[in-house]
Amino acid sequence: MSALRVRIRAGGAARPATARHSLRIGVPQRPWSSASARPFHKDEPAAPILKTKIPGPKAVEAVKQLDRVFDTRSINMMADYTQSVGNYISDPDGNMLLDVYAQIASIPVGYNNPELRKIAQTPEMVDAIINRPALGNFPSHTWASVLESGVLKVAPKGLNNVYTAMAGSDANEIAYKAAFMYRRQQERGGADVDFTSHEIESAMNNQSPGSPQLSILSFKSSFHGRLFGCLSTTRSKPIHKLDIPAFDWPQATFPQLKYPLDQHTEENAKAEQASLDEVEHLIKTWHLPPAAVVVEPIQSEGGDNHASPAFFRKLRALTRKHNVLLIADEVQTGVGATGKFWAHEHWNLEDPPDMVTFSKKAQTAGYYYSSKDLRPNKPYRQFNTWMGDPSRALLFRGIIGEIERLDLVNHTAKVGRYLFDKLSGLASKYPDHFQNLRGKGQGTFIAFDHPRRDEFLAKAKGFGINIGGSGANAVRLRPMLTFQEHHADILIEALEKVVKTL
Amino acid sequence: MSALRVRIRAGGAARPATARHSLRIGVPQRPWSSASARPFHKDEPAAPILKTKIPGPKAVEAVKQLDRVFDTRSINMMADYTQSVGNYISDPDGNMLLDVYAQIASIPVGYNNPELRKIAQTPEMVDAIINRPALGNFPSHTWASVLESGVLKVAPKGLNNVYTAMAGSDANEIAYKAAFMYRRQQERGGADVDFTSHEIESAMNNQSPGSPQLSILSFKSSFHGRLFGCLSTTRSKPIHKLDIPAFDWPQATFPQLKYPLDQHTEENAKAEQASLDEVEHLIKTWHLPPAAVVVEPIQSEGGDNHASPAFFRKLRALTRKHNVLLIADEVQTGVGATGKFWAHEHWNLEDPPDMVTFSKKAQTAGYYYSSKDLRPNKPYRQFNTWMGDPSRALLFRGIIGEIERLDLVNHTAKVGRYLFDKLSGLASKYPDHFQNLRGKGQGTFIAFDHPRRDEFLAKAKGFGINIGGSGANAVRLRPMLTFQEHHADILIEALEKVVKTL
Repeated sequence: MSALRVRIRAGGAARPATARHSLRIGVPQRPWSSASARPFHKDEPAAPILKTKIPGPKAVEAVKQLDRVFDTRSINMMADYTQSVGNYISDPDGNMLLDVYAQIASIPVGYNNPELRKIAQTPEMVDAIINRPALGNFPSHTWASVLESGVLKVAPKGLNNVYTAMAGSDANEIAYKAAFMYRRQQERGGADVDFTSHEIESAMNNQSPGSPQLSILSFKSSFHGRLFGCLSTTRSKPIHKLDIPAFDWPQATFPQLKYPLDQHTEENAKAEQASLDEVEHLIKTWHLPPAAVVVEPIQSEGGDNHASPAFFRKLRALTRKHNVLLIADEVQTGVGATGKFWAHEHWNLEDPPDMVTFSKKAQTAGYYYSSKDLRPNKPYRQFNTWMGDPSRALLFRGIIGEIERLDLVNHTAKVGRYLFDKLSGLASKYPDHFQNLRGKGQGTFIAFDHPRRDEFLAKAKGFGINIGGSGANAVRLRPMLTFQEHHADILIEALEKVVKTL
Repeated sequence: MSALRVRIRAGGAARPATARHSLRIGVPQRPWSSASARPFHKDEPAAPILKTKIPGPKAVEAVKQLDRVFDTRSINMMADYTQSVGNYISDPDGNMLLDVYAQIASIPVGYNNPELRKIAQTPEMVDAIINRPALGNFPSHTWASVLESGVLKVAPKGLNNVYTAMAGSDANEIAYKAAFMYRRQQERGGADVDFTSHEIESAMNNQSPGSPQLSILSFKSSFHGRLFGCLSTTRSKPIHKLDIPAFDWPQATFPQLKYPLDQHTEENAKAEQASLDEVEHLIKTWHLPPAAVVVEPIQSEGGDNHASPAFFRKLRALTRKHNVLLIADEVQTGVGATGKFWAHEHWNLEDPPDMVTFSKKAQTAGYYYSSKDLRPNKPYRQFNTWMGDPSRALLFRGIIGEIERLDLVNHTAKVGRYLFDKLSGLASKYPDHFQNLRGKGQGTFIAFDHPRRDEFLAKAKGFGINIGGSGANAVRLRPMLTFQEHHADILIEALEKVVKTL
């Protein structure tokens, strides 16, 4: 083992893997020697490094210390970010795992990315950190250019305005608020029609008509966040919802496609049509009429459930027909991982969604919207103290810079095809372990089901892989955008080792 | 005028006030020449600098540019944070106003604070910005010490645990969620009793018992944020609530005290008792029983409404008696401005609130809680991707360091007394312009009513003061913690000039 020394950090001392504890996983020592796989992160180890079982003694101690003051029961792995690099997450015991979970799909361009490090040290960033504005009242004179050169540079086609937010869940909630205000404005007869005194009084008492009897329609097994409004649209797992009061809003069945898709064309089309019929029925009949339908391009927390572009095109037409807004929740699917910058680009819509919400890999949050009609008719209707965070908007601009510089959207489409093919091979060889493989043509946004999923995830750490689950049985792959073919090779080899032990 | 050159920035070139446009406001050119007023921010100008009317031409242009992509209708003033310093906010036209609004009460220790600048440049901060963890799953091994040396160092007495969040509104929402989970756990018979299948199924359908028929009780004219759950407890203004669906939760009348307090002792005591009686009545009879009462120590957005410590002690006793949790919303009142670190310290409680929420001047957010019973009984019940932001927790630690180094809580108590006395003088001289002066003994958390409040606020800019309002008629003072007596002198002189024009 002592020959397998791995250079960990640029400019740092070589850190020899301690023979007694270290287990080096994966095949190629210099996988990027071929031109096709020149590494984006030149300081990554050539392969995962295991020095202890996970959690190791230092991690156990750190969890114990943290538990005194912070809820630690959901800890997956104690991390050491100072030692993490690129696609590799480190822990306090010196283990380095290939990370295809990436902070629940939220790290875009690698740990300790040198370009982001530069941006974090700019005077502009320092200024944004220490002088945080109330953006709605006192924006900086540079805010327009920060938005235009960053957040809005990647605005979905046709959606050229933005409200910024803090995280995915409040991005969804403020999009819902915009939908309700828009709907009521239409019912009222336009932007110029004032509120009635009855509306004003009843709103202060949380009663209709001021607090309207309207809803947001979502899909079964969807996830849109865990604040009270978005949680009312989240239908992923009971543990997310139990004991929390919720609005009586409607849910439609999301198509449950069968795999492989090409062997179930007809029944999948039927499932999609049944779902659309249910949506239309709920729009027409639900006692609290929907102001909007919210949908994830790929249901992520709910188990990586896909539907066809045709389904989404019909959903757009249906919502348009009934004058209901369509919100695409791209919090998890957005920013490149599906091989398009926005996953809804796969739908080839002529008429874009009315709003697209984003967060996670953007490292900031908000919603894009299609027209100024969706700006509430008066100031202070969509407002809060911070309304986002310029420091995070600067970071997103840097992330966009990295995506452009390295052509990471096209790259992810390509490496996704490579990875999907390899996984198809595993699925043929181990059909019981790689069920319902899905995400073909969706970049690296790939998943499969495993009957003993939680065991699968836990065992993967022992083979140097940090990997996550979703829904009841899905193993979901959420690598960063800088995940490359040599990482895919390491991953595939490790996954095969995992299933051999199960 | 040309003699009144003011040094603007440390180490920078002296910037001469252009005689043609500049108007220098305030008396003392070197107000800190006396030892008692040694300035915390040595690079501040000696007084406000007005070079143009506000907004000036550059600000108008910047607003126009921003409006193309961002809602600008609530803009109060376009700012230039690179030129702002200490208690002074700058704009793109070179104006520098004494800022006693401070980003809606959220800037704690001055713009471009040199100590915070150092912290923003530390490797630890850079790491936190570029490697943002999903704190519930993959916390950093340093997270416990970041919390213990920062957020938890200033934990309210008896509340030694924390859940971190992003902003005040989600801090309140997760506190409400904790209250609901706690209540249902008690009803269920304890932490070890499992959910029934009926609960699980009904929760997925947003129906009771899984989505329980419970409420949060709040007070009329309170403000707790604008997400769907906290907005259901917010009762400040119709514009905050109109067109947004709300839960049918109860509201009690907040005591409407008459001023001066010492002339209305008896009727104020009656108003407080009536409020408490109403709270008890609602707890006993509301069709959705309250799991918690949420209250601001001083109702801030709602108009700076105070109640006596005795009121809050009785509220604590009442909630305890009925087994209802008490949440103190210290988002605006916390972190020193009232002359205590937490405003509820003024209440002298023996039995602390069950939860205290915080944000704004903390530059991060979350809730402190009293006991591990308030940790939900299973993991992933209080969870989201980011669960806060370590970079902002590092900043809060730095803010705490500044508060300690400069003894800013005691300072604010002292300068608050000075300011209140001066304002009392103005109120005697101009009783129609300074009505219901309140906040005595509450640090700089001072307000008064003005019959033409919006005009008052707008005119103040012309005299070099950035000042905010709350409620229908209140002018609220929210200076930073580094606001000093010489600033108070400038403020008082300007306010007198304002009222002379009204």
